[in-house]
Order: sequence, then structure tokens, then C-alpha cells
Amino acid sequence: MVEHHDENVVHLDPAASPESMAERLAGLHPADIAASLERVEVEMVTRVLRQLDQETAGDVLVNLDEHTRAEVLAILNAPEIAGVAGELESDDAADVIGALEEPKRDEVLAKLEEDDRKVVEDLLQYTDESAGGIMTSEFVYVDQDARVDDAIARGVISLRTLVLAQPGARVEDLMEPDVVTVSADMDQEDVAEVFRKYDLVAIPVVDPDGTLAGRITVDDIMDVMYEEAEEDISIMAGTREEEFHEDSALRVSRIRLPWLVVGALGGLGSATVMNFYRLSLEKVLALAFFVPVITAMGGNVGLQTSTIIVRSMRTDRRLVGETRQRLLREWRVAITNAIILGGAIYLIVGLWFGDWRLAAVVGGSLAAVILVAATLGTVMPFALRRIGIDPAVAQGPFVTTLNDIIGILVYLGLASTFIERLG
Amino acid sequence: MVEHHDENVVHLDPAASPESMAERLAGLHPADIAASLERVEVEMVTRVLRQLDQETAGDVLVNLDEHTRAEVLAILNAPEIAGVAGELESDDAADVIGALEEPKRDEVLAKLEEDDRKVVEDLLQYTDESAGGIMTSEFVYVDQDARVDDAIARGVISLRTLVLAQPGARVEDLMEPDVVTVSADMDQEDVAEVFRKYDLVAIPVVDPDGTLAGRITVDDIMDVMYEEAEEDISIMAGTREEEFHEDSALRVSRIRLPWLVVGALGGLGSATVMNFYRLSLEKVLALAFFVPVITAMGGNVGLQTSTIIVRSMRTDRRLVGETRQRLLREWRVAITNAIILGGAIYLIVGLWFGDWRLAAVVGGSLAAVILVAATLGTVMPFALRRIGIDPAVAQGPFVTTLNDIIGILVYLGLASTFIERLG
Repeated sequence: MVEHHDENVVHLDPAASPESMAERLAGLHPADIAASLERVEVEMVTRVLRQLDQETAGDVLVNLDEHTRAEVLAILNAPEIAGVAGELESDDAADVIGALEEPKRDEVLAKLEEDDRKVVEDLLQYTDESAGGIMTSEFVYVDQDARVDDAIARGVISLRTLVLAQPGARVEDLMEPDVVTVSADMDQEDVAEVFRKYDLVAIPVVDPDGTLAGRITVDDIMDVMYEEAEEDISIMAGTREEEFHEDSALRVSRIRLPWLVVGALGGLGSATVMNFYRLSLEKVLALAFFVPVITAMGGNVGLQTSTIIVRSMRTDRRLVGETRQRLLREWRVAITNAIILGGAIYLIVGLWFGDWRLAAVVGGSLAAVILVAATLGTVMPFALRRIGIDPAVAQGPFVTTLNDIIGILVYLGLASTFIERLG
Repeated sequence: MVEHHDENVVHLDPAASPESMAERLAGLHPADIAASLERVEVEMVTRVLRQLDQETAGDVLVNLDEHTRAEVLAILNAPEIAGVAGELESDDAADVIGALEEPKRDEVLAKLEEDDRKVVEDLLQYTDESAGGIMTSEFVYVDQDARVDDAIARGVISLRTLVLAQPGARVEDLMEPDVVTVSADMDQEDVAEVFRKYDLVAIPVVDPDGTLAGRITVDDIMDVMYEEAEEDISIMAGTREEEFHEDSALRVSRIRLPWLVVGALGGLGSATVMNFYRLSLEKVLALAFFVPVITAMGGNVGLQTSTIIVRSMRTDRRLVGETRQRLLREWRVAITNAIILGGAIYLIVGLWFGDWRLAAVVGGSLAAVILVAATLGTVMPFALRRIGIDPAVAQGPFVTTLNDIIGILVYLGLASTFIERLG
């Protein structure tokens, strides 16, 4: 037994020959070979893969990160890819071949054996993020009146059940009648939730007409869970997972810039609002000092609210309900926070500046902004979902930016009314 | 076969008797019974559980969300809990019993059978988030010179391998010599990464002295992955997963307030900085208009940077490296973005206000703030890790708030120097 350590990853000498690298990697788990190869040049990765037997090469290819794999596939020729893909399980073969550009994709498909080609072509029809997109087509079935020894020979039902049964028993008496299945067009994230809920290791996938189309295994589900978590976090951070594999500053910059531009435009929007209220600001400069309090609070409240709403939309738990119910809960929380924080800021500003009117304007506006941000944070995810956009976007920089502008508008709007009325 | 739908969740009439509820739920998967019960009062959940046989009651209890489960366990008495826990696998029994307060925990342990108690007590010694905390102690072993039919009878090695082998073959010839194991004190998140990397369904857990302590199965790993993703997102949003199960506005408010207070204090810090530079602001009021641009940009750049750093710290991929290397990459990206965004803002402010000195101050400060935020976003996760704090905290409101203050300080510091020298 070897305890798990990253020491399983071999540090290859970049100057070594592909033959000697392949020799050093021999006997390692394909995942460790892949992790070791991700540290060398793509050209060299390809040359090492050519040294390995096709089955190992296929398993290593599947374990490479998506970016390195795409580069390797661009270098390998069609017969090489077909040779490797022929050794893979159908879902992995479809992933590899689906990632190819035309005409290379057709060339590889043409080089596959008849049966393999049909299976891969079938799988390629499903969209990437659906149950069909992650299922494999390899499965066997037996009639329900088959005998156990026949089922053992073909490998269906839990092997544990079969091994413990009498060889002459009928399969119908052993099988689970209420097997959970998913349809091929179900979103992969929902499939993951089904696995997690029922503690599954594999699940049958059915086509809309109810025929068995394939099966999904838990190893692919772990990848789905990981990818989806990464995607959510990337949306919140205003970047994309792809930049992990980018060394070029220009390309990373291109990935991050759109969200920074959103922030910059939002900031210019805020500047426009402040410019509009410049007379009030000239009269009471201290009003400007509390703009960062207002924007920080609007941003934080909006993010807390939208995060909880998006989460509860996903997990079908007790709190899922209609927009109105959720809004009521969030308002109760927001009112509590508005009273506490608005009151605290009122006291602090009053004691600090000795100007209790300024204190009332800042404290009151802060309370109003908290209520507005909680409302936006609740309504946005529902609105986005209705127009077909991932509600998670409500947790990203776009909505925070919107909250900034609205917050300043509410703050200076209230402040200028107050200043005009009371002089 | 039943296709998966949330229709598996039964909508119970809250006025029904516990007996009739138990009848309606009979035959459902324990996960569905749990999901159905989460919609009724906790008192009633407890009464329905008492109607179920102990094994089903245990499976349902384990499937309840943590919050409902804690409330149910507070109502059940020690003999009831011991009866149910006796039917559970050891890891689930340890979770249930570990969640109890003293003296109830000892009362339940005392009521368990001798063997079960010893196992649960052993498991309770491991910390919650370690491999030991999620492993079960049920496993069997055979000597390597045992015969296959003996191993089948006891259920070790992959059943598939055993079934396909000759009954008289020796186990040593079939077993994987290089099984991956994890140590009992490994963090559960790292264990999940091992499962994902090697596509595992189960893994043996060893104690520091190398003896086999238990095994972890993939169903628990899916829960770990889900929890960790939720935790990361909650940290970023400045809230906690617990509030999902809170209906009380006051208690939700108490969960969210700490982060809002951080934001408010940060905002007051920014106000202090602006007050310090009030002479410059009085001279050029328009300087205040661009404070939101500066804070938005510092916040977004800091979040993008820290997110990528925290992610790459976790996944041991190509980009992991020393602080200095990472800093160099992030600086190259930040310089690119600083030039593009600083230049754009320079032009916009110049054309808008016709004041090219103001434009230079705002554009130049924005560029400087981008560089500072990228530096903080890179250094913070490493610094937090060094002092033993989860680096993910660098993605939360605390660091964004710090970025706000530093951004305004840089901006107004540069602006006032500029105004004095040229003004």
C-alpha cells in the first residue's frame, strides 16, 4: 500500500528524451502520469504519449486538464486519436472526439470501428452539460425471467446481490423494482443532486420514449460537482476557470477585463449621479465621505441576499418558495439589519461631526439602501431565471455594480431633499 | 422504473396524524421520506419517526438536513437514539451521537451494545473534517494467501474481480498491490481530491502507525464536495450555510451582521481618509465623484486575483508555485489591465470635465489601485495560510473592505500631492 501524497507525481527532467520519460512514468496510475506530464511542454507530452500503449495513452489523455488535452489533440493525427479513442469507454471517447474541430472530427470517426463509431455518434448528439453528455453507452441487460447464473455471466444488478443469491433464483425476484433513473436531457447538475440524495454509484439514463440509453457512473459525477462549484465561484469573482491554464498576461487580461469594464462603467454611473447632486455636495462636503459606507453596505447586503436565494433555488429545500414569500423573509432580515446598522451609523456620524441632521441623512439612507439592496438581491435571481439566464449571475459583479449606483442615488436623493427642506 | 422527479417528495397534510403520515411515506426511499418530513413541524417529524421501524428511522434521520436533525435529536430520548443508532453504519452512528450534548451523549453510548460503543467511541476521537471523521469502521480483511471462495464469503476486493476468478486462486494474485490509502488525519477536502483524481468508489484509511483504521465511501465524499463548495461560496458572500434553515429574522440577522459591521467599519475608515483630505476635496470636488470607480475597481481586481490564487493553492496544478512566481504573473496581468483601464478613464474624465490634470490624477490613481489590489489579492491568501487561517477568507468581505480603504488612500494621497505641486 502506498499512502497518498503528491509524491506520486514525478518531476520530469525537461531535457530528457520521451523514451526515458515514458520509462520513468511506467507503472504509475494514469492520473499521476497526467499530473506529471502537465508540467512539461505540450510537444513533449505528445511524444511521451506516443511511447505508451494505446490503452494507457487513452487513460492519460482523459486525465489531462482540458486545456492541455486540447493542445495535445491538435498535434496528434487522426489515426493516432482513433487508435486511442477505440480503447476508451464510450463517454470518454465522445468527450475526446467531440472536442475536435471539423474536418478532424470526421476523419477520426471514419477511422473508428463500425460499432464504436455508431455509439460515439449517438453520444455526440447530447448537449455537453446534460445527462446524455456524461453517460456511457456500455451496459448489459437481462430479461427479468433470466436465471442468476446468466446475470452473473453478463454482469447486471449489484454483484453483491447476485453473489449472495441462489444460482437458480430468477432475476425478477432480486432486482430493485423502483430504480431511480434520469432522462438524457436532464441537466448534469440535477443529475449530481440525484446521486448525492440517493447515495448512488451509478444510474441508468433513459431516452424520452423510456428506452434505456446508457448509464452514468459516480466518477463523472464527482467531476461535474467540481466543475459546477468552480463555475459558481468564477461567476462570483468575475473571472473564468480557463485562466488557470493561461500563462499569457494578455489572454488572462482579456478574460478578466469584461467584468472590470462593467465595474468601471458602474463607477462612472456613480460619478454621474454625484455630479448631478454637486450643489448638495458643495453645501455639505461631508456627505461625500459616506459614499463608501453606502456602496459597501449595498454591495454586501445584495450579495448575501442573492447568494441565499440562488442556493435555495437550487437545493429544493424548505426555503424554496415563491418570490413573494422569499421577499418577505428577506425584508424581515433587512429591516432588522437596517435598524441596527442605520442606528449605529446615526450615532457615530452625529458624535463625530456634531451634526445630527447629517447623521440622520446618512443613517436613514443607509437603512433605505439596505432595504433596496435586499429587494434587488431577492428579485434579481428570479428575474434572471425567468429570462433564461443563470441566476448565479446575480452574485457577480454586474449586480453589485448596479447596487452601487442605486445606493448612491437613494443616498444623495434623500440627502438633497432633506438639505433643501431644512435649509 | 420511476424517473426521478421531485414528485418523489410527498406533500403531507400538516393536520394529519403521525400514523397516517407514516403510512403515506411507507415504501419511499429514506432520502425522500426525509425531504417530505422537512416540510412539517419538528415535533411531528419526531412522532412520525417513532412510527417507523428503527432501521428506516435511522436512515431517515441521517438524510435530514443538519438543523432539523439536531432539533429531532433534542426531542428523542437516549434509549430511542441508541436504538436507532444501533442500526446505522458506524460513521453515521458517530455523526448522530457526536452531535449530542453531554450528558445525553454518554447516556446514548451507555445504551449501545459493547461492540458498537467501542467503534463509535473510536470514531468520535477524530476531528469532524478529517478522513477519520467521515470513515466507517466496518470492513473485513483476508490474508493474502486466503482462497477466493473464502474472500467471496467475507466480501473483500472488488466483487467483480472475485467473481471472475477461479475459486481456488490465491487472493494475493488478484489484489491490487498499490492501493491508494489516506491517513486518518488527512483533511476531508484533500480526501475528496484523491477520490476525484483516481475515480475511486471507496478508499482504505490508515492510522499513523500504518494499521487499517476504516474505509471511506464515495457517497460521503459527494457530501463533502457539496459542503465545501457551499462553505467557499458562503465565505465569499459573507454569510453562513446555517441560515438556510433559519426562519427567525433575528437569528439570520445575527449570522449576517458581523460581515456587514466589517463593511460599515471599513466605510467609516474610508470616511476618515476622505475627511483627512478634505482640503483637496473642497478645492476639487470632482475628485469625490471618482471614489466609487476607485473602490469598485480595487474590489473587483482584488477578488479576481485572490480567487485564482486560492483555487490554484488547492488544486496542485501547473500554476501552483511560490508567492514570488504568482506575484509576477499577477503583476503582468495587472499592469496590462492598469494601462487599458487607467488610459480609458483618463480619456473619459478628460473629455467629460475638460480638466486633463484631474483626468491624469484619476487615471493614474486607478492604475496604481489596480496594482495594489492585485498585490494584496496575491499576498493575502499566502499570508493567511501561513498564520493558519483558511486562505478562502481572502475572497470575503474583509479583504474587499481593506482594498476599499487602501484604494481611497492611494487615490487621494496621489491627488493631493498632485494638486499641491501643480495647483
